[in-house]
Amino acid sequence: MKLWQKGTKLDPRVERYTVGCDPELDLALIPYDCAASIAHVKMLNAVGILGAGEARSLVAELGRIVELAKNGRFRIKPSDEDGHTAIENHLVRKLGAAGKKVHTARSRNDQVLTALRLYSRDQLDETRRASAGLIRRLNGLRRKHRDVIFPGYTHSRKAMPYTVGRYFGAFADSLRDDLALVRAAAEINDQNPLGTAAGYGTTVAIDRELTTRLLGFRRMQKSELYAQNSRGKFESIILSALSQIMLDLQRLAHDLVLYSMEEFGYLRLPEAFCTGSSIMPQKKNPDVLELVRANFGAVHACYLQTVEILKGLPSGYHRDLQLTKEPLMRGFCSTLATVRIMDLVLSGIVVDAEKCRNACTDEIFAADRAFELVKQGVPFRDAYRRVSRKY
Amino acid sequence: MKLWQKGTKLDPRVERYTVGCDPELDLALIPYDCAASIAHVKMLNAVGILGAGEARSLVAELGRIVELAKNGRFRIKPSDEDGHTAIENHLVRKLGAAGKKVHTARSRNDQVLTALRLYSRDQLDETRRASAGLIRRLNGLRRKHRDVIFPGYTHSRKAMPYTVGRYFGAFADSLRDDLALVRAAAEINDQNPLGTAAGYGTTVAIDRELTTRLLGFRRMQKSELYAQNSRGKFESIILSALSQIMLDLQRLAHDLVLYSMEEFGYLRLPEAFCTGSSIMPQKKNPDVLELVRANFGAVHACYLQTVEILKGLPSGYHRDLQLTKEPLMRGFCSTLATVRIMDLVLSGIVVDAEKCRNACTDEIFAADRAFELVKQGVPFRDAYRRVSRKY
Amino acid sequence: MKLWQKGTKLDPRVERYTVGCDPELDLALIPYDCAASIAHVKMLNAVGILGAGEARSLVAELGRIVELAKNGRFRIKPSDEDGHTAIENHLVRKLGAAGKKVHTARSRNDQVLTALRLYSRDQLDETRRASAGLIRRLNGLRRKHRDVIFPGYTHSRKAMPYTVGRYFGAFADSLRDDLALVRAAAEINDQNPLGTAAGYGTTVAIDRELTTRLLGFRRMQKSELYAQNSRGKFESIILSALSQIMLDLQRLAHDLVLYSMEEFGYLRLPEAFCTGSSIMPQKKNPDVLELVRANFGAVHACYLQTVEILKGLPSGYHRDLQLTKEPLMRGFCSTLATVRIMDLVLSGIVVDAEKCRNACTDEIFAADRAFELVKQGVPFRDAYRRVSRKY
Amino acid sequence: MKLWQKGTKLDPRVERYTVGCDPELDLALIPYDCAASIAHVKMLNAVGILGAGEARSLVAELGRIVELAKNGRFRIKPSDEDGHTAIENHLVRKLGAAGKKVHTARSRNDQVLTALRLYSRDQLDETRRASAGLIRRLNGLRRKHRDVIFPGYTHSRKAMPYTVGRYFGAFADSLRDDLALVRAAAEINDQNPLGTAAGYGTTVAIDRELTTRLLGFRRMQKSELYAQNSRGKFESIILSALSQIMLDLQRLAHDLVLYSMEEFGYLRLPEAFCTGSSIMPQKKNPDVLELVRANFGAVHACYLQTVEILKGLPSGYHRDLQLTKEPLMRGFCSTLATVRIMDLVLSGIVVDAEKCRNACTDEIFAADRAFELVKQGVPFRDAYRRVSRKY
Repeated sequence: MKLWQKGTKLDPRVERYTVGCDPELDLALIPYDCAASIAHVKMLNAVGILGAGEARSLVAELGRIVELAKNGRFRIKPSDEDGHTAIENHLVRKLGAAGKKVHTARSRNDQVLTALRLYSRDQLDETRRASAGLIRRLNGLRRKHRDVIFPGYTHSRKAMPYTVGRYFGAFADSLRDDLALVRAAAEINDQNPLGTAAGYGTTVAIDRELTTRLLGFRRMQKSELYAQNSRGKFESIILSALSQIMLDLQRLAHDLVLYSMEEFGYLRLPEAFCTGSSIMPQKKNPDVLELVRANFGAVHACYLQTVEILKGLPSGYHRDLQLTKEPLMRGFCSTLATVRIMDLVLSGIVVDAEKCRNACTDEIFAADRAFELVKQGVPFRDAYRRVSRKY
Repeated sequence: MKLWQKGTKLDPRVERYTVGCDPELDLALIPYDCAASIAHVKMLNAVGILGAGEARSLVAELGRIVELAKNGRFRIKPSDEDGHTAIENHLVRKLGAAGKKVHTARSRNDQVLTALRLYSRDQLDETRRASAGLIRRLNGLRRKHRDVIFPGYTHSRKAMPYTVGRYFGAFADSLRDDLALVRAAAEINDQNPLGTAAGYGTTVAIDRELTTRLLGFRRMQKSELYAQNSRGKFESIILSALSQIMLDLQRLAHDLVLYSMEEFGYLRLPEAFCTGSSIMPQKKNPDVLELVRANFGAVHACYLQTVEILKGLPSGYHRDLQLTKEPLMRGFCSTLATVRIMDLVLSGIVVDAEKCRNACTDEIFAADRAFELVKQGVPFRDAYRRVSRKY
Repeated sequence: MKLWQKGTKLDPRVERYTVGCDPELDLALIPYDCAASIAHVKMLNAVGILGAGEARSLVAELGRIVELAKNGRFRIKPSDEDGHTAIENHLVRKLGAAGKKVHTARSRNDQVLTALRLYSRDQLDETRRASAGLIRRLNGLRRKHRDVIFPGYTHSRKAMPYTVGRYFGAFADSLRDDLALVRAAAEINDQNPLGTAAGYGTTVAIDRELTTRLLGFRRMQKSELYAQNSRGKFESIILSALSQIMLDLQRLAHDLVLYSMEEFGYLRLPEAFCTGSSIMPQKKNPDVLELVRANFGAVHACYLQTVEILKGLPSGYHRDLQLTKEPLMRGFCSTLATVRIMDLVLSGIVVDAEKCRNACTDEIFAADRAFELVKQGVPFRDAYRRVSRKY
Repeated sequence: MKLWQKGTKLDPRVERYTVGCDPELDLALIPYDCAASIAHVKMLNAVGILGAGEARSLVAELGRIVELAKNGRFRIKPSDEDGHTAIENHLVRKLGAAGKKVHTARSRNDQVLTALRLYSRDQLDETRRASAGLIRRLNGLRRKHRDVIFPGYTHSRKAMPYTVGRYFGAFADSLRDDLALVRAAAEINDQNPLGTAAGYGTTVAIDRELTTRLLGFRRMQKSELYAQNSRGKFESIILSALSQIMLDLQRLAHDLVLYSMEEFGYLRLPEAFCTGSSIMPQKKNPDVLELVRANFGAVHACYLQTVEILKGLPSGYHRDLQLTKEPLMRGFCSTLATVRIMDLVLSGIVVDAEKCRNACTDEIFAADRAFELVKQGVPFRDAYRRVSRKY
C-alpha cells in the first residue's frame, strides 16, 4: 500500500511507468535508509514525539530490516512504490502505532536524500581507497622502470626519449589530483539534509543537530530548499569527479592497447588477461582494456544524464529527480570496477625493456643535439635550424 | 566454455569485468540471433558446407532455442561469455559435428550486428506504430478543442490568443517530422551485415545475397569494414532519432505540468494518473509527466554514451562497442514506454474551456488592435507605437 | 533604435548581455533575411497591404541592402539589437512609411526562422556537394588501391588480410549513408514558417502559399506554434546529421594518423601537409588530421548546446533560442571546412604498398587456414581449435 | 615565419585549417605568455644560458609587447601561426641573437600551458570575486524578505508555506558550495608546467623551482608527461566547476521567469531590465533571464567539447588540444557575464509581499494540520489520513 493512498486507485500503467526500476535500486539503499531512520527515531524520542519503548522497538526492528536486506529477504513490492514505503509498511505491520509515527516531521524527500548521502559517503570512501591502491601500483611501476628508456610521443610521432617509469608516474600524479576532486565532492556531500522534510521544513520542533551528530555528518544543511535543490546536483558533482578518474584510465588503457601492439611491443599483457576470437585462431585481445575505455563513456553519460534532468527544473522536488539515482549507482559501480581492474592489469603487465630501448631511434635525440650546440654558444633557434636540416 | 578457449584460463576478475551484464542483455537478442543463424545455416547448405540433414536439424534446434528463450528456459552462463557462444555450445551439445560447423564463415562480430539489426528493425517498427497512435491522439485533440481559445505565450508571458486544438496540433506535426528521422534511421539500419565476418570477409565462397533475401533486408552491406564500423554508429543514429521524439514529449510534459497548475487551470489530469505525498495530505502530483521529462535525459544520455564510446576508436571491431548494446536497448525501452504513457495521459486529460477563455485578458489582443489600425491605413510600426502607449 | 522601444531605456548592461554577439552573426543572415523580406513584401502587395509602388521600392532597397552587406558596408549597430531591426530601420530611413509597413503580419520570430531555413538550405546543399566530392575521392582510392593488401585489425591487433582499396571504400559507403541523414534533415528544414508571426498567427489575411512558392519551399509549415517550437529543434536535427559526418571523419583521421606512424608506415602524408615543432628539429606532424579529430568534438558540442538549451523550455518562443544560432553556424562552418580538408589530404596521401604487404605476417592467415581444413571436411570449430594450437 | 619552417611550404589550405582562430584567441593570452617568458628568461640567466644584458633587454622587450597588446597594437599574423611565434619573431627582430635564445629548453607545449594556467588563475579569482558578490546579494535578500511568506512548491504544485527570504538563501548556500569546487579547480590549476618542454623534459640543466617561485605557483608540476596530459583535462575540471555555478543560475532564472508571470505575480523585474516585441505592443519580456538559462547550455557545451576532444587520445601533446582553448575562454566569459548580470537583476527585483501572502491558500497548511493532530497524540500516518480526506 502506498503511503498517500486514499480512495482513487492509481492507473496500473501509470504505476508501472512511475515506479520503474526504483524498488530494485532501493534495495541497495535499505541499510542507509534504516541507519537514517534509526537516527530519526532517536531524535523523535529526544524531542518527546516517540516514547522510549516505541523508540527502542523501532530501532530494533530497523536493525532487523537491515539483516533481512543483507540476506536478500527484504522485499520491496511494486505496490510499495519504493523502499521508504516498504520500510514504513513493515514497521506498521510489526509495531502498529509506533510504526505510524516514524514518518513524523520528515518526508520521503529528505529521507531519500539522507540515504543517498550516506550511501555516497561510503562509495566515495571506497573510491578513494581503491584509487589510492592504484596510485601505489603506479608509483611502484615508476620506481621499477625508472631506467627503461623508450620514445616519448607528440602528435603520435616519436618525439624525445623518456622512461617507462616516468610514463607510469604521470598517471599516479594525475590520479592524485583527481582525488582532490573526489575529496571536494565528498565534503560537499557530507551535510545532513534530514529534517528538511519536503524542502520547506516542518512546524514540529525537531533537533537537526542531534541527527547530524548521530549520523556523523560534518555539518547540517540548514537551508531546507537547498537540500531539495541539491538532489541531482550533488550526484552530478560526484559523477563529474568520477569522470576525471575514468578520463585518466581510458587514456592509460588507450596507451596500453597501443604500446602492446606488435608494431610497438613495449608492453605485454599476460595471457590470462586476454580473450580470443570466435573465428581467428591466433587472436589474443586486450578486451579488458577496451572495456576500461568504454566505461569512461558509460560513466560520463551518467554525469550527463543527471545534468540533463536538472536543466529547466524550477526549485523544489520533482519526480524527475528519481532518474538521477540509477546513474549515480551505475557511475560508482563502473568506476570502482574499473579502478580495481586497472590495478590488476598493471600488476601483470610486462615491460619489454629491449624493445623500448631499440625504439629510441636516432631522430628522437635531435632536440638534444640542438641543446648541445646551445651549450657551445649557438642561439637555440639557430641550433634548431642547423639540426633540422638533416630531417 | 568459450569459443576461443585453449589452455590458459582467463583470470576470473577479468572475466567478470569483460562479460559484464552481456548475458542478461543477450537474452533479448536470442530470437534474432537464432533467426540470423537459421538464414546462415540455409546459406551454408546452399553453398555446400552443410549437408541437407545437418541444416534441417540445425534449423529445428535453433527454433527450439527460440521457444526455450520465450519461456525463460534458455540460460546464458557467465562462462559462456555471451549469447552467441551459448547458442553454439547448445547446438554442439545437441547435434555434435553439425553444431561445430554453424560458425563457418562468420564471426561473432557480424553475428551480433545481424541480431541487433533485426532487433532494431522490430523496435523501430514498434516505435513508429506507437508514435503514429500518439499522433492520432493529438490530432483528435486538435479537432476536439479547435474552438477553445487560450493565451499563447512567448517569453513565458501571455502573447496572443490561440486555441487549445492548435496547441495539440503543433505536437502532432512535430512528431510527424520526427517519424521522418525514424524512417531514415530504419532505412540505414536495413542492410545485411551477415557474412562480413570479423570485418574483413572470409575466403569461403558464401552467398550473401541469399541471407539478405532470407532475412528480408532491403540491401546488403557490401563493405565488410563498414559493417564493423557501423557498430555503435547505427545505434547512435537510431538513438538520435529517438531523442527527437523524447525532446518533443518532454516539452509537451513540461507544458502540461505548467498548464495544469492551479495558477493556470487550463488542464486537469485525472486523479487516477496522479500520485500523492508521504507528508502533505493535500497533494496530487503529476509524477507521470515529470518522469516523461526525465526520460528525455535518460534517452539522450544513451545517445551520448554511444557517441562517446566511438570517439577515438580506430577502424574495425573493438570490445568497447559492447557497451553500446545496453544504451540502445534502454533507449528503445524508455522511448516506447514514454510514447505509450503520453498517449494514455492525453486520453484522460480534461480541458477547462472556461478558465482558458477567462485567461485571455485584454492585453493579448494588442497586436490585433494594431492590425485594426493597419487596416485603416496606418503603417504597422506607427500603429504598433500608438497601441503600445497603453502598456 | 529598437523596434519596441518606448519611454524606458533598457539598462546598458542588460542590453550588452542580451544582444551578445548577435549583430555579428546576423551579418551572415542578411542576404537570407532580405530574400525572405522581398517575398513578404510581394505577398503584402498581393493581399493589398502594400501598394505596387511601395512594394517596388521596398524590393529594390532590400536588394541594395544585400549588395551593401556583400561589400561589408551594411552595419548592425548594437543599439539596433539585431539584423531584422537594422533592416527595418534602414528601410524606414530610406523609404519612410513604406518601411514602417514591412513588418505587418510578421514577427521577428518567424522572420529569423525563415532566414535560418534559407541559410540552412544553402549550407546543407553545400555540405552535400562537398561530401559527394569526398565520396568520389574515396571511391577513387578504392579503385586505385584495390590490390594492395594490408592487415585488417580488430581489437587493435592484426586480424585478417584486407586491401587498402576496401579500407577507403568503407568510408565512402559510410558517408553515403550519412548523406541520407543530411537529406532527411534538409527535407524537414524545407518548410516555410513565414507568416506564423510570433507563433500564434495574425488576424491579417495573408497568403502563406504565395511566400512558400516565392521562396521555393517544398511545403508550408502550417502549425504556427510548431514553427516556433521547431526553432532549435531543426538546428539540433541538422547538427546531429553533421555530427555523423564528423564521426566518420574523425575515425578516418585517427586511422590515418596511426597508419602513417613509422611503426606502421602504410601511408605517408606529403610534407606540405605537415607542421613542425618549435623544439624538436626532426618533427613532421599530422596536425591537420588531429584538428579533424578535434573538430568532431566541436561540432558534437554544438549539437549538445542546442539540445541543452531546448530542454525544459515550455512551448513558444523564448530568448534562450538565440543561443542556438551560433552553434548552428559554427557547426556548418567546421563541418564544411573539415570535409574539404579531408578531400585535400586524401588527394595527397601516399600508400606504401610494400610496407602494407610486408605487414601481412603469417598469423593473419590463421582463419584462412582453418577454412582450408573446413574445405577438407573438418567442422569449423574443430578446424579452429587445431589451428589455434600454433598460437 | 613559423618557428619550424624549412624548405617545404605548408599548403595554404592546410595552414588556414590548422591555424583557425588561434591568433585571435592568443591575443588574450599575450600578457600571460610574456609574464611566463620573463620568468623563463630570468631563469635562463640564472643558469647561465643568457647573459645578464641579454636577459635585461629581453625582459624589457617582453614588457613592451604587453604594452603593445594592451593598446591593441600587437599583431599575430596568420603566418606567425600563434602568439608564441609572434612573440619570438618580435624578439628576434628587435634583439637578434638574444631573441633566438629565448626558446631554449622550452617548447610551445609548456609555454601555452603556462600562459593558460596564469590566465585561468586570474579568471578563477575573478569568478570567485563575482560569485562572492552574488552570494552577498542573495544573503541580503534572505534577510530583507525573511518574513514574506509564499508557497513552496513540489512537483510544481503548492506544497507548504515558505519565505521568500529562505528562497533566496537556498541559492546563496548552493553557490557557496560551488565555490568549493572552483577552489579545488584553482588548486589543481596552480602548478607550474614551465620547463616540461614538449612533455619529456630537456637535457638542459634548468631551474624549475625558480620559475615556480617567480610565477607565484603553489607547486611545481614535476611529471613532464602529466603536464602535457593535463592540457584539456584542467580545462575540463575548470569548466565543470563553472557549469555548477551556471546550473544554479539557470534554475534561479527559471524560477524568476515563473514567479514573475502574471499568473503568480510574486516578483517583478524593473522595466529597464525588460525587452519588447516587434509585433506585440504590450510585451515586457524577461530576455535577460532567458539568456542566463541558455548560457548554462553554452557553458556546459564548452565542458563537453573539452572532454570529447580528450577521449581516445593517447598520452602526450596532440594538436587536437588546441580546440580546448576556445571553449575555456568562452566558458569563463559566459560565466562571469552571467554571474554579474544576475547580481544586477537581483539588485532590481521587486517582491510583491501581498501577492505572495495571498497565494498561501488553505491547502498548503494541510501538513501543519496533521502535525497539530500529532501533537494531540495521533500517530502521524493516521493524522495524515484523517487530514487527507478533505482533499
